[in-house]
Amino acid sequence: MNNQVVFGIDRPYQDLGGGVSRRVLAHQPDQMIVEVRFEQDAQGAVHAHPHVQSTYVLSGSFRFVIDGEPVTVNQGDTITFLRDQMHGCTCLAAGSLLDIFTPMREDFL
Amino acid sequence: MNNQVVFGIDRPYQDLGGGVSRRVLAHQPDQMIVEVRFEQDAQGAVHAHPHVQSTYVLSGSFRFVIDGEPVTVNQGDTITFLRDQMHGCTCLAAGSLLDIFTPMREDFL
Repeated sequence: MNNQVVFGIDRPYQDLGGGVSRRVLAHQPDQMIVEVRFEQDAQGAVHAHPHVQSTYVLSGSFRFVIDGEPVTVNQGDTITFLRDQMHGCTCLAAGSLLDIFTPMREDFL
Repeated sequence: MNNQVVFGIDRPYQDLGGGVSRRVLAHQPDQMIVEVRFEQDAQGAVHAHPHVQSTYVLSGSFRFVIDGEPVTVNQGDTITFLRDQMHGCTCLAAGSLLDIFTPMREDFL
């Protein structure tokens, strides 16, 4: 059971540069939970991947562009991204996102 | 794209009784995001389901029992639950959990 629980304090953030840092939390083949921290004005470049994704805004404010359409989200808002859908974001106020991937992102390990 | 974004303010909590309330956030067939709020001493009865689940502790403190083994988790900790694995919790300090299900829980809609 022990490997099913991840204590946040045990997972330092990995600095991705550009004001963005990330830590992978508990995961299994069908779900991976990732916390991503943004400084104000930091960007998540527009990209796509074959994994289904949901994003929950833990704190801060973010302007997403999904398939070219903009939307601004804040703490407690959620977005689902479809397989291979283009998406990116700009951080309007420093905060963190919780990204959930199905299947897990093997490239993040 | 609009149905892929859910603003938390638009989703009131549903009172489940016993100090527990729940709101379903954005979801698609392979992922459902659910916020569950607990008063202190409220319980999530031990149960199991065929859906894979991850739980992220948004706030508060919770004692889970997973396959009979206890573990205490706090803000920023995560747990993965396997398909059909018995799990339940007691809230030690009032707070909220973010539950993620794959596939979505049709019974929650």
